[in-house]
Amino acid sequence: MKRVIDTRRRQFILSGAGAAAAAGFGSLSPAALAQKSKPLPDYAAYKDASRVIVHSGKTIETKRSGFGTSVIVPDDILYVRNNLPAPDPMIVADRDAWVVSIEGVRNPRKITIGELKTIGIVTVAAVLQCSGNGRAFFPHKTSGSQWSVGAAGCVIWSGVPVSALAKAMGGVADGRHFMTGSGDEKIPAGIDPKSVMVERSVPLEAMESALLAWEMNGDPLPLTHGGPLRLVIPGYYGVNNVKYVDRLAFTENETNAKIQASGYRVRPVGQKGKPGQPSMWEMNVKSWINHPAGMGDTVRAGMVQINGVAFGGTKGVRLVEVSVDGGKTWNDAQFVGPDLGKYAWRQFVYPVRLKPGSYTLVSRAIDEDGNAQPAERKDNHRGYGHNGWRDHGVKITVS
Amino acid sequence: MKRVIDTRRRQFILSGAGAAAAAGFGSLSPAALAQKSKPLPDYAAYKDASRVIVHSGKTIETKRSGFGTSVIVPDDILYVRNNLPAPDPMIVADRDAWVVSIEGVRNPRKITIGELKTIGIVTVAAVLQCSGNGRAFFPHKTSGSQWSVGAAGCVIWSGVPVSALAKAMGGVADGRHFMTGSGDEKIPAGIDPKSVMVERSVPLEAMESALLAWEMNGDPLPLTHGGPLRLVIPGYYGVNNVKYVDRLAFTENETNAKIQASGYRVRPVGQKGKPGQPSMWEMNVKSWINHPAGMGDTVRAGMVQINGVAFGGTKGVRLVEVSVDGGKTWNDAQFVGPDLGKYAWRQFVYPVRLKPGSYTLVSRAIDEDGNAQPAERKDNHRGYGHNGWRDHGVKITVS
Repeated sequence: MKRVIDTRRRQFILSGAGAAAAAGFGSLSPAALAQKSKPLPDYAAYKDASRVIVHSGKTIETKRSGFGTSVIVPDDILYVRNNLPAPDPMIVADRDAWVVSIEGVRNPRKITIGELKTIGIVTVAAVLQCSGNGRAFFPHKTSGSQWSVGAAGCVIWSGVPVSALAKAMGGVADGRHFMTGSGDEKIPAGIDPKSVMVERSVPLEAMESALLAWEMNGDPLPLTHGGPLRLVIPGYYGVNNVKYVDRLAFTENETNAKIQASGYRVRPVGQKGKPGQPSMWEMNVKSWINHPAGMGDTVRAGMVQINGVAFGGTKGVRLVEVSVDGGKTWNDAQFVGPDLGKYAWRQFVYPVRLKPGSYTLVSRAIDEDGNAQPAERKDNHRGYGHNGWRDHGVKITVS
Repeated sequence: MKRVIDTRRRQFILSGAGAAAAAGFGSLSPAALAQKSKPLPDYAAYKDASRVIVHSGKTIETKRSGFGTSVIVPDDILYVRNNLPAPDPMIVADRDAWVVSIEGVRNPRKITIGELKTIGIVTVAAVLQCSGNGRAFFPHKTSGSQWSVGAAGCVIWSGVPVSALAKAMGGVADGRHFMTGSGDEKIPAGIDPKSVMVERSVPLEAMESALLAWEMNGDPLPLTHGGPLRLVIPGYYGVNNVKYVDRLAFTENETNAKIQASGYRVRPVGQKGKPGQPSMWEMNVKSWINHPAGMGDTVRAGMVQINGVAFGGTKGVRLVEVSVDGGKTWNDAQFVGPDLGKYAWRQFVYPVRLKPGSYTLVSRAIDEDGNAQPAERKDNHRGYGHNGWRDHGVKITVS
């Protein structure tokens, strides 16, 4: 048995890469460079250990070298970011019996997944990305997992459209400006629930593209990724995609749970989070190169198929450019593979003949509205929303 | 560990379905009805036993109720059809070192996967389907696994385009009319290799869309599905997609291996196979309903989201119609989810309000060229190419 599993999950090794050295490259912070992968936690024991970095029992990152070129990211390497301990696996024992309370509609009530499945079906490919993806590239000391590029993945979700669900319940009640999802995680005893509960609010207009998903990539939604039911808001950062959702409410105000009120807020380094600061909602335009995977890679001289991923949050990507000289000169990359829609990422490839030497490979994307990935990061206390192309570059030696 | 795996793989249960009774429905042959699922073979031990039917150590089918609505079919439920025992897992120990001989080009030579990766990258979503999918619906006694609908799946392949590879080797030599792929399976001692080897030829024009794939759905191609390298010919029946490919040759004639010369030929019931009879190359237009999954399902009265898949082989699908009265009256279904290109299948849904009673649900698809799925099967000796919509219907009771 062991042997079979080993061979199925053998690491994807890049052409000419003597050692696919995973996450090491560019301008990683000392904290990021010091970290080592930990053992996989029980609830994610099925992940492919050779293609992920386990930061903690609640945070697992896909290695840059672990991404393939198939557009979608499979469950066995998809990143994990839990805010609370994973729930008891018994919650997926009878999936259709799971109950979610729908509130802030004209006819509010509780509904099972079984009944949700009669209301409508939608299938959406979308990028899921942690707000702190790229945190490892900030020079200041940031708390939280030191993600480089792998706290993100493009997956296919299937479930019921929130808009159809709201309509079936008489429509959204008057005066509601937010959609608020609550997770079912158990709150440790003796702790103020509001201080740790996962409850997030997003602007009401996000409901038009949102779904309550029970399936991911053709499988019943794994517990590890929020099964049996997850609120998915395509184009919004991961934290808004509430796992094990047991309440979906259209609300007048944002929730006052700490994760919303002061958490996931963009603010100057050293300042405390508070309402009014920008919340981590819509994702910005971003791209990075996955192969070659960076420092440590020795690539053979000759043709190299430089490839990576690009996405625009709630917008499609119009163009990706690649530079092999650290951003002095740029060339258009080609998109490869099917276009899975504006919330998905595109695979791009730039075929180039490289002579022996050292190269710094960078990519930059432009979304459908003309927003371009900036060169530099925008420093902020928690290291959120990094889409600067320079830090995401990879250094390779060609010999 | 066991507990984690169990919960991740818990069966997808349909709305209102008391028992998702898997493969039972419609007009299954006595042989099909008599069969029981066997234990998973070692090389496929990771498959989700609750969502597949193991016909034999070489043939595993996805249950109709096991399909989701995410367009793609994940590795853990994708069907398996091997013609010979699975090779030693050691062949995927060093994937980039795998060697394939390219012949019938101006500059023939052997090449490793590592080098193939420098030549080009293509990513294609395509339906993989066994020639005998639907065999269980033929009334005559057919040899071979009694597949109903689940010897098919839509997956995303990534690899090098055959056209780019041929170009890199000086182009196809003169006078070549076929592309012939050979598998690396070990031939049992004392047997004429030609009588069992997996070697298939397809018309030369198929090279334009073909690829040598090393990745499937974002994972290194599993041994179970032909890893480390598989010849993929989008739109062609599964047998042409040669696993563990170690030779790709542009040839003047079709191979004389038995699997080509007399195998996989459409001929009248009772006749022997021989060259000249139609070979199982391009797939025909086809669709079927996955949910509700058929006989044994009890569906609750009210709204039902009837859904399934439709594809057109080498052509896209233009339209799918659904009937709830066994084909007397038809209604247009809606496509849901991203369009992954003309070789992929589309998910369709037909939402309908059903009162208590008995219903026969059928679907029929029309491809981009106007080819419509016929009502009836075309009887043939081995039970190949069945796309008649009547036999693929499902019977449900609504209460």
